[in-house]
Amino acid sequence: MDLTRDIALAARLADAAGNVIRPLFRSNFTQEQKSDKSPVTEADKSAEAAMRAILEAERSDDGIIGEEYGNRNEAAGRQWVLDPIDGTVSFMAGRPIFGTLIALMQDGWPILGVIDQPISGERWIGQIGKGTTLNGKPVRTAPCREITAAKLATSSPHYFKGEEVDAYMSVAKVVGSDARQGMIVYGGDCYNYGLLAAGHLDIICEAGLEIYDYAALVPIVEGAGGIMSDWQGNPLDAGSDGNVLALGDPARLEDVLEAMGPN
Amino acid sequence: MDLTRDIALAARLADAAGNVIRPLFRSNFTQEQKSDKSPVTEADKSAEAAMRAILEAERSDDGIIGEEYGNRNEAAGRQWVLDPIDGTVSFMAGRPIFGTLIALMQDGWPILGVIDQPISGERWIGQIGKGTTLNGKPVRTAPCREITAAKLATSSPHYFKGEEVDAYMSVAKVVGSDARQGMIVYGGDCYNYGLLAAGHLDIICEAGLEIYDYAALVPIVEGAGGIMSDWQGNPLDAGSDGNVLALGDPARLEDVLEAMGPN
Repeated sequence: MDLTRDIALAARLADAAGNVIRPLFRSNFTQEQKSDKSPVTEADKSAEAAMRAILEAERSDDGIIGEEYGNRNEAAGRQWVLDPIDGTVSFMAGRPIFGTLIALMQDGWPILGVIDQPISGERWIGQIGKGTTLNGKPVRTAPCREITAAKLATSSPHYFKGEEVDAYMSVAKVVGSDARQGMIVYGGDCYNYGLLAAGHLDIICEAGLEIYDYAALVPIVEGAGGIMSDWQGNPLDAGSDGNVLALGDPARLEDVLEAMGPN
Repeated sequence: MDLTRDIALAARLADAAGNVIRPLFRSNFTQEQKSDKSPVTEADKSAEAAMRAILEAERSDDGIIGEEYGNRNEAAGRQWVLDPIDGTVSFMAGRPIFGTLIALMQDGWPILGVIDQPISGERWIGQIGKGTTLNGKPVRTAPCREITAAKLATSSPHYFKGEEVDAYMSVAKVVGSDARQGMIVYGGDCYNYGLLAAGHLDIICEAGLEIYDYAALVPIVEGAGGIMSDWQGNPLDAGSDGNVLALGDPARLEDVLEAMGPN
């Protein structure tokens, strides 16, 4: 499948979002609470609007799934999945580790993904079967010979509910079983997946994600040689439950699933 | 007290550390475990060595308290406190939100502090009674009218032990009491204190810090109009227990202490 035109379009979407976000970073932006009580700023809304305007003008037959402005053309086989700012709380705190996420799904499967960090100027582009780049240069995940030596990341402990806490803590304990508790980093949202794709993290374990949070990550992680799955080891698609794993070294997936136990 | 010469020296120390750290960021650096099982890399060790070499050559009468290479001239009234990389796990994960910390203590009280982020090129300098700058421009903390609207940060939930977990979670619940649970950011280490000084975060609550983790932060936060204290509301000095609070708006300190309860 030739995605050359789609990649060029995705890059223009990321440019448009970044142009909106950059002047608002660490500025006196307006904010409000969404119906689910999570925060949203004018940067999230304006960045998604800028991307949707391009898609609606140039790809009127494609569908759109957007975090802030919902769905369009839901029956289309090709769906653009947009999260204008993944990591809104990091954006609001002035931390340059949020990202704009853009994915293209074909029949529910993510085939192209972009993570764009507009402050540091880092852009990951991933394509299933074709590799992942960071600012145009190919990146690869790192081997991880033993789960006890893994560098683990998750965005927030508050995202785990009920038994999910125990499943996550089981992984955290295995990673820290040689007492390297310091090898767990918190915060980071989509930016962590870019770092995993580039070989700097080994495992990410998260719960409660929405399709716009993870669709772009799959081609980036898997294009770089890693693997993403749900907590049962199944591939991620539009119907997944939002509990996700990412591993730089696919050979460690069974170890992580075993550590988590049935859930 | 005229600290002009000391500020110039601290800036040169930060330059020296940054020159060591930058080429090792996201590189194939060596790492090992310290006796407390926390990780340390060649970047931590070489950056502290570079700073100590300058101090030993130019300020042989002053003391040094360093995370990696220990104490020198412990009886001196003036002590330079060095943490070459605060946030080593973020450094190891390739996240540009660690920092080099440099403090000058006079008779156990921090009077000058530097947070340097060598990848983004951000440098905070704070001086008790004289203000705080970010890359040379004055910064101020933000007002926080109600604790329920505060943006809270902490580096890792694993740093809280036993009853400290309950104290922290009490603050987290109050901050989220209007259901804005998303207003808590995790990870970030010293970088969060720089963001608080610049008005982007309201409260930081951490446990188990060492003198080299917090000495530089006090002049930066308080120079910008905020307040730092231990969990009983007492000012921080070389004898503090390492459980720290930072608030952008000093008027909210009583609210935070009340939320935490006796501990």
